[in-house]
Amino acid sequence: MKTLQDLKPLIEYLQEIQHLSSAISIFHWDQETYMPPGAGQARAQQLSSLGGLAHDKSVGPEMQRLLSQWVDLKSGEIKGEWDEAPQALLREVWRDYDKATKLPSEYVRRFAKASSISEQVWVEARKKSDFPLFMPHLKTMVDLKKEEIGYIGYKDSPYDALLDAYEPGMTVAQLVPLFAALKQELVPLLEKIVHSPVQPKDDFLRHSYVPEKQLAFGHQVLEAMGFNFNTGRQDLSAHPFTTSFHPTDVRITTRVDEHDLLSSLFSSIHEGGHALYDQGLQADLYGTPLGEARSLGVHESQSRLWENGIGRSKPFWGHFYPILQKTFPEGLRGVDPETFYAAVNTVRPSLIRVEADELTYNLHIMVRFEIERALIEENLPVEELPSLWNEKMGQYLGVVPDSDAHGVLQDIHWSGGAIGYFPTYTLGNLYSVQFLNQAKKEMPGLEGEIAKGNLLPLKKWLNEKIHRWGKQYPTDELVRRVTGEPLNPTYFIQYLKEKFGPIYRVT
Amino acid sequence: MKTLQDLKPLIEYLQEIQHLSSAISIFHWDQETYMPPGAGQARAQQLSSLGGLAHDKSVGPEMQRLLSQWVDLKSGEIKGEWDEAPQALLREVWRDYDKATKLPSEYVRRFAKASSISEQVWVEARKKSDFPLFMPHLKTMVDLKKEEIGYIGYKDSPYDALLDAYEPGMTVAQLVPLFAALKQELVPLLEKIVHSPVQPKDDFLRHSYVPEKQLAFGHQVLEAMGFNFNTGRQDLSAHPFTTSFHPTDVRITTRVDEHDLLSSLFSSIHEGGHALYDQGLQADLYGTPLGEARSLGVHESQSRLWENGIGRSKPFWGHFYPILQKTFPEGLRGVDPETFYAAVNTVRPSLIRVEADELTYNLHIMVRFEIERALIEENLPVEELPSLWNEKMGQYLGVVPDSDAHGVLQDIHWSGGAIGYFPTYTLGNLYSVQFLNQAKKEMPGLEGEIAKGNLLPLKKWLNEKIHRWGKQYPTDELVRRVTGEPLNPTYFIQYLKEKFGPIYRVT
Repeated sequence: MKTLQDLKPLIEYLQEIQHLSSAISIFHWDQETYMPPGAGQARAQQLSSLGGLAHDKSVGPEMQRLLSQWVDLKSGEIKGEWDEAPQALLREVWRDYDKATKLPSEYVRRFAKASSISEQVWVEARKKSDFPLFMPHLKTMVDLKKEEIGYIGYKDSPYDALLDAYEPGMTVAQLVPLFAALKQELVPLLEKIVHSPVQPKDDFLRHSYVPEKQLAFGHQVLEAMGFNFNTGRQDLSAHPFTTSFHPTDVRITTRVDEHDLLSSLFSSIHEGGHALYDQGLQADLYGTPLGEARSLGVHESQSRLWENGIGRSKPFWGHFYPILQKTFPEGLRGVDPETFYAAVNTVRPSLIRVEADELTYNLHIMVRFEIERALIEENLPVEELPSLWNEKMGQYLGVVPDSDAHGVLQDIHWSGGAIGYFPTYTLGNLYSVQFLNQAKKEMPGLEGEIAKGNLLPLKKWLNEKIHRWGKQYPTDELVRRVTGEPLNPTYFIQYLKEKFGPIYRVT
Repeated sequence: MKTLQDLKPLIEYLQEIQHLSSAISIFHWDQETYMPPGAGQARAQQLSSLGGLAHDKSVGPEMQRLLSQWVDLKSGEIKGEWDEAPQALLREVWRDYDKATKLPSEYVRRFAKASSISEQVWVEARKKSDFPLFMPHLKTMVDLKKEEIGYIGYKDSPYDALLDAYEPGMTVAQLVPLFAALKQELVPLLEKIVHSPVQPKDDFLRHSYVPEKQLAFGHQVLEAMGFNFNTGRQDLSAHPFTTSFHPTDVRITTRVDEHDLLSSLFSSIHEGGHALYDQGLQADLYGTPLGEARSLGVHESQSRLWENGIGRSKPFWGHFYPILQKTFPEGLRGVDPETFYAAVNTVRPSLIRVEADELTYNLHIMVRFEIERALIEENLPVEELPSLWNEKMGQYLGVVPDSDAHGVLQDIHWSGGAIGYFPTYTLGNLYSVQFLNQAKKEMPGLEGEIAKGNLLPLKKWLNEKIHRWGKQYPTDELVRRVTGEPLNPTYFIQYLKEKFGPIYRVT
């Protein structure tokens, strides 16, 4: 049986590529946090050049030489007898290699440059709510992704080729019934909630809350979660995100609004959940699939588990509400814990995905998923996006954007060519509840610990069960290993009913 | 006659390498500004890997193929007839290529990793004033530089091989008489100043000055100098520095001390001078020698020209002192412009180079130059550095460090292997005065403009005369083109006498 030790030269080569990827990541992080505005064009060239270089190395002769010793490059068949971990490593490296060889290096450079410029124009366009300014860049990105589908190929839907990059193995054929089942339950539940005579009072969330104190409180929660500030940091950016240059250098960002007590806090907890995953990866295997996050859906499960499963739970606020109230005695004067808990769990159809509650969030995703399929499967012209967006928002959420900034321009994803990404958010929601249920089952005292502010047992459980495995198991196998069964949306539906039933007095 | 257009493929290849170098620069910048402390080991690996990659590309088969079309790779002889600019480009590219081919790629990686770790240990050692902690790393760096000399070779002194990396063409044989001439004039002048009965009052500089206001004033001065904040920024770091990822992305850092009014201000002006050079390089030729700074000495001439020639001059403070006094009405209460001007020009032998005045600064450099020569030419053991340092400080400046943090550990340079770098500071001082004299000669109204706060004519002159030329001319030719004569230390000596004579009433 061959072991990881036998793969040392390959691992070292993968880590060289990883250093290039980390350079790309720091350029991106910098672009969103500290880059001077006039550096945009140069940054686009830098990203394009490094992206092309990383791509060249990942398909070049040295990669072929190293990989072909152990894998048939055509079929992906692994030669010889291997331990489980190196076998998985070879499986995943070949998968990436096979995909990357399909993309011409010229395309990779062209894409990197176009997406960097497009992202910068999107920032401008969103600021001015100017869709026509962004439109030609969006068209370029869609065309580039279609070109990519042409290189990669697909079986059933061209959209599968894109989806697979974010959620390996997932297909439109699997998603459609999953989303239908969800819609069938969520829409009537939302209906009941919207029309319930019981509506949480939450106007106090918009009092004045000093930004510095908000950030300090978020910091405190991140520390309780086990986010390691010795190997990570938090900065400000227009759109919160998590990035990692190594498990010992994981960075999150947030934005803060004086008149919104929850926005910065929940973005911190959300990105903190992502960051715990990245900090929990195996450092010595970083750059190899065994030291990489399983999929975006699993990544999102970690952020949503912390943001919603913990951050919007009763035990969590049992400990943290008194601290928050002490931090903001004026803003929260007279607000009792029950009122605060209900306010944190307000369900209200709204325009902005990242500010949506747990229930309507998935309807935002459905709007995007359907538009993406129309763009890719039916060649919908990008000109029609704003009206289609507004139409679907009215249909599923009963609200229509007053401007494109609050509509079709709100998300960064499409500007960087990330089409096929949105469904992973809903998958993340489903995984998160299934994982958290299992954690509670295995640790009956967990909620008691959380109520004491002790979040570390949960973090440790996630480290052990999910983070440390990287991509060793395919997603469906990982879910089965952790929870004993495949992805099952009924946990999520049940969770929503059990949470919102009492708050809104609906059944 | 062939033109730059003929070199397009080479230029594009050089720019690809530049993008790697820019990635290295941003990793360095980040290491000094925002990197989480626990990321040091990973950062060292990233820097090592990218440094090796950039080196591989700059000596690899593609480089050879491109360059050998126009240059004999053995002799450096340029084939065919070329315009002045492409001829210079080929001359400099071959020079870099020839040097780089002498270094094994394995050595480059080893050096990058060792220097990154050594720099991090130095930070720790300086903080604790613990020379023994740093010593093994310093020994490694010295050994690595000696190994490098072995690869590069030299004619007269092994030290020349190192010096040439920072100040191409400069040699120990040229420096020794230059420094001797300087010492002959400076030591008696310092003697007179120290014993003069007239000593500026400067205790008010150590009153309390709110850091934020200090930074805002520095920002205002940088704007007046023409530093472009749209294509640059300023951050905080332990040791002020300037770095550039492109002429549209130039970054400076400073540190600020509530009880030192001048430290942050003059570091801002100093780094601002460097930054104007970097912002003034030709963006379309960035990554080629024509879009690169001529030498460290010329770079330093720009920072010192602004810091001392302008920032410590009467016309400058004629405009800025009233503003500063309005910013700090309490701290500067009752301090008249004459008193302030004298305080800004206090000469006082002290321990720290970066805080030294214009006169004693060069004595600090001589201490380092002599120690470096002893390390390289005479194999002085690093164990003996602290005592030799203290001995020389006593000899030249009449002061002896109370701790290694204020002595041999104060500078970052040796920790990163930058041996042979220090002499460029004194060269910069000499060039700066010679350049500024010429600017005043060509623009008789210059001092009048400066007294009105209009610093832009000088910036424009420097852009035109120095920045835009990159490495088109060798340093001695550049100096001759700008000032009509070769480097001449008498300008500097005369400048010091004319400035300090009246302040200290010495002749």
